[in-house]
Amino acid sequence: MFLYQTPLRDMQFVLHELLGASASIAAMRRAVSWDRETTDQAIDAVGRFAGSELARLNAGGDEEGCRVEAGVVRTPRGFAEAYRRFVDAGWPTLAYDEKFGGQGAPAILYSAMLEMLYAANAGWTMYFGTARGAYECLHTHASPQQQAYYLPNVVSGRWTTTMCLTEAHCGSDLGLLRTRAVPQADGSYRINGSKLFISGGDQDFTENIVHLVLARVTGAPPGVRGISLFVVPKHLPQAGGLSPERNGMTATAVEHKMGLRGSATCAMNFEDSVGWLVGRPNEGMRNMFVMINSSRIGVAVQAVGLAQAAYCSALGYARERLQMRAAGGPRRPDLPADPIIEHADVRRMLLTQKAHVEAGRMLVYWLSLLLDQEAFGADETTRSEAAGLVGLLTPVAKAFLTENAFVAANHAIQIHGGHGYIRDHGVEQIVRDVRIAQIYEGTNGIQARDLLARKVLADGGAQLDAFLNRVWHDVADGGIAGLPGGFAEPLLRVCDDLRQLPARIGGAAAGNADEIGAAGTDFLRALGHVACAWLFARAAGVATLRLSAGTSDPLYASKLATARFYFSRLLPEASMHLHVARSGAASLSDLREDHLFV
Amino acid sequence: MFLYQTPLRDMQFVLHELLGASASIAAMRRAVSWDRETTDQAIDAVGRFAGSELARLNAGGDEEGCRVEAGVVRTPRGFAEAYRRFVDAGWPTLAYDEKFGGQGAPAILYSAMLEMLYAANAGWTMYFGTARGAYECLHTHASPQQQAYYLPNVVSGRWTTTMCLTEAHCGSDLGLLRTRAVPQADGSYRINGSKLFISGGDQDFTENIVHLVLARVTGAPPGVRGISLFVVPKHLPQAGGLSPERNGMTATAVEHKMGLRGSATCAMNFEDSVGWLVGRPNEGMRNMFVMINSSRIGVAVQAVGLAQAAYCSALGYARERLQMRAAGGPRRPDLPADPIIEHADVRRMLLTQKAHVEAGRMLVYWLSLLLDQEAFGADETTRSEAAGLVGLLTPVAKAFLTENAFVAANHAIQIHGGHGYIRDHGVEQIVRDVRIAQIYEGTNGIQARDLLARKVLADGGAQLDAFLNRVWHDVADGGIAGLPGGFAEPLLRVCDDLRQLPARIGGAAAGNADEIGAAGTDFLRALGHVACAWLFARAAGVATLRLSAGTSDPLYASKLATARFYFSRLLPEASMHLHVARSGAASLSDLREDHLFV
Repeated sequence: MFLYQTPLRDMQFVLHELLGASASIAAMRRAVSWDRETTDQAIDAVGRFAGSELARLNAGGDEEGCRVEAGVVRTPRGFAEAYRRFVDAGWPTLAYDEKFGGQGAPAILYSAMLEMLYAANAGWTMYFGTARGAYECLHTHASPQQQAYYLPNVVSGRWTTTMCLTEAHCGSDLGLLRTRAVPQADGSYRINGSKLFISGGDQDFTENIVHLVLARVTGAPPGVRGISLFVVPKHLPQAGGLSPERNGMTATAVEHKMGLRGSATCAMNFEDSVGWLVGRPNEGMRNMFVMINSSRIGVAVQAVGLAQAAYCSALGYARERLQMRAAGGPRRPDLPADPIIEHADVRRMLLTQKAHVEAGRMLVYWLSLLLDQEAFGADETTRSEAAGLVGLLTPVAKAFLTENAFVAANHAIQIHGGHGYIRDHGVEQIVRDVRIAQIYEGTNGIQARDLLARKVLADGGAQLDAFLNRVWHDVADGGIAGLPGGFAEPLLRVCDDLRQLPARIGGAAAGNADEIGAAGTDFLRALGHVACAWLFARAAGVATLRLSAGTSDPLYASKLATARFYFSRLLPEASMHLHVARSGAASLSDLREDHLFV
Repeated sequence: MFLYQTPLRDMQFVLHELLGASASIAAMRRAVSWDRETTDQAIDAVGRFAGSELARLNAGGDEEGCRVEAGVVRTPRGFAEAYRRFVDAGWPTLAYDEKFGGQGAPAILYSAMLEMLYAANAGWTMYFGTARGAYECLHTHASPQQQAYYLPNVVSGRWTTTMCLTEAHCGSDLGLLRTRAVPQADGSYRINGSKLFISGGDQDFTENIVHLVLARVTGAPPGVRGISLFVVPKHLPQAGGLSPERNGMTATAVEHKMGLRGSATCAMNFEDSVGWLVGRPNEGMRNMFVMINSSRIGVAVQAVGLAQAAYCSALGYARERLQMRAAGGPRRPDLPADPIIEHADVRRMLLTQKAHVEAGRMLVYWLSLLLDQEAFGADETTRSEAAGLVGLLTPVAKAFLTENAFVAANHAIQIHGGHGYIRDHGVEQIVRDVRIAQIYEGTNGIQARDLLARKVLADGGAQLDAFLNRVWHDVADGGIAGLPGGFAEPLLRVCDDLRQLPARIGGAAAGNADEIGAAGTDFLRALGHVACAWLFARAAGVATLRLSAGTSDPLYASKLATARFYFSRLLPEASMHLHVARSGAASLSDLREDHLFV
């Protein structure tokens, strides 16, 4: 009963009408010929693949899960075939450099594709989820020979990739990692150690897997400054192709997880694995970090996709399920009861889902466009402005949108009532699947710290001010054509309060270093609301202009009403978070550690 | 790795120091000899049973689940034996009338017992979860003969009970139900129909099950006015005991649920089942509702128990897991990194859990005490005041505490990071188990409607005012001895805003009936915060007096700090909800139903 309809119309609205993506991309210094028509065709085709092939494997993948059989991971029925069709259709190549066989599409199109894949089957999509990050990492840091060997296979999707960072005793704190790399006479390294939570650490649908592994070279300094990055293929090259022998590694177990059960999350043992250094020794963390913004935006995209799937299911159910009469009297007297969509509280939950999904889509597509502007913007100003915004808003998108998606997914259960708690409707799976997004690629607490300490306080709030000035200009100085009344005042109030916060926190932190950690999460959520409310204000401007022009497309009335809902019922959360962020560290640190007991 | 430590000290604090339960109970018109010592012994003994026997079956029960084999439900390994030991120890009889074999303990002790059972193993406890409601229903409405036959077996726990209300097409709207009852010449009825989501509809550990079934007698009026209540045992009486034949009923399936998988949630077919009317025909809904307050408080108790289990696990992990250094520099230089409890954001989550657990415990224990005061208070004023408070605050406790417990459970996953997402640590199970609490016994949306429409607007806000006056008196007029500074002002501000809301909503509802549904959920959450903040203010008063007296018990400093945390970081949510509740129905109803699309 799992439903997923591709939200093509809203995707088009964001890409073309809100962001004017084609024009932005055309102005970049990398010539990309992705016009509106090509974009729409690509989205439509991937959407059909996701909505049919992938969606029908989603519940089964969760039910069956993955297992290790004689040292080999077995993925759920149908996953391997679907992956092969995906590769044969050429979709993995979409957004990569033509030099390595890619189609050169912009990052925003990649995000749109990823949204649909994650929505339809998040477990399956995980096998493909690190590809872009691995590509960027190798593209930036690997030697020309390494690039020539690995990248065409990563771009085509013939080989999948993993990121081997976490170990049992370290996740957030990679400085503690223990995996060792010993240099060999031939320039390779022998790698030994155990890695944990490796998505797609093994699978049964490609001939090879490219592991990017963090390890310490013999004699390296302790901490993060002694970590190097290695490329370690599952099968080593030999004359004419790949060695049939497995490189020294085993997936020792597949984790039994709350969700994403179609994805093989492996415990990996590297035993005398042959690997090669990527980039320079002891610069592994820096080299790995090149992929971090796109990976974190990828998680935000996953959240948007799953929230969309939850909204889709809940909306379908709310239209069909008949319980009680509407408060104002029967709306469907022909039926034994009214559809529950007629009840205000159900509508509140549906609109919350819709608003979170649409806000999230605007934010991640915009950030994806900025990723390309950072790399390929026509001039230095464009590039550095984009880089500043990406740096500031990536942790916001990752944490804010994954939390909102969890809320949206849970509303789908609630709207289904008892039927949502059983497996048949598929919505409880969405909650289980999306829960991890708040954790991986840096927990949301890590995102909050990154935002407040490194992105805001480190430059004295300059980048934050630049963004808030842009919001201010748009809503207070006529920057948004068509902006209807009622939007400027509440948003500006939150902006003003937010702007004053860094100086206050920075001052307090001089006396108590915990002040930053104590305020981070609430600060992040407030900024997330500002970003999303601003994007909704822009969307409301576009919608209002179209409505005045007499459009018959129902999207615009829907968009305007959703924007108003956001301002009435979701934006007020920002003021609460600002209030809490101002409350300081005392309420956390006054309680002695030994007074925290059960 | 599932941890559960009975929070004996905090339970004692609430029972004895905050609520003075023994004295309250001693003053009731039903003589109950449950003094402080007896109470503490009972809690300690049940706590040991829960923390050992039940907790060790919890993960296995989830993993194994229930199944139907040849028409018989099989429960997880060890469940039946644990239930027999529970019955043999006499615990089921704790809080029932001595006349039927009970020990006559007060409802508050029953809630304390239930909290521990649910915390240790919610799936197992479900088999016992309807017992008190069924007892009260039969005790109030069944004939003396029915009572004499069924109650001793329910009280002893030899027979379990179910509530058979829901059908596939109706849950919240029981007026639609279709199960039929045809009167027979001997005074019995033949019952035919299908029921859904019946907890413990069948199991393999008692000789009989007492089903309380809602059905329509032939010729009954449509809607809720044509529903009657029947008692339908799994095995019918025959001379000398029970018929070995099963009464006409089958558990056709066990649902595959998100959580509570140890509990057999059955689809039941009644085929010519023999049953007997309980109370009068067509008064089934009213008769069933007699159990509603205690059942809803039971769900709130379940939420508190599971939140406690989540806090327990998270606290244990946060003390052991070493990642990074504290912001102010190493706290444990002897270790490779500091325990994560030293990070402000982790502490924020732990304190949120602790505050929700302790607030919830205060609220449900107080309501349990009021349940007895409603029934057995010494004078009419005491009884009617208690009844008013129970009516007002039961939907609040059910909805507010189940939502807070979900937050607390999710924080346990977050604190565990990736380790929380895999099954081994047991915290993801808590999230799955507690999720249903927002749905069953009336969805939280139904609770919000019950509160605002029936408990607040129906009496023009009189009962709400009475409660708010009590809060006002306590915090503004010296009603709380020892109340420290900083508590009165924020609470009174929320009280004032809350007090003005019903008139505003009532007025608006005259023009648009959806205004009630549009405000209900936010109104409920604001009132929940007032109730919990007030209880924390009272607890802070007790703690301050003890601290001035020079106590060495660390509970009091802990309690005071937790109360301050609640006021600094959780109570601000109330103002947000009041703001949203004031925003009205327009943002929900302006969007045409056909404009809600994907």
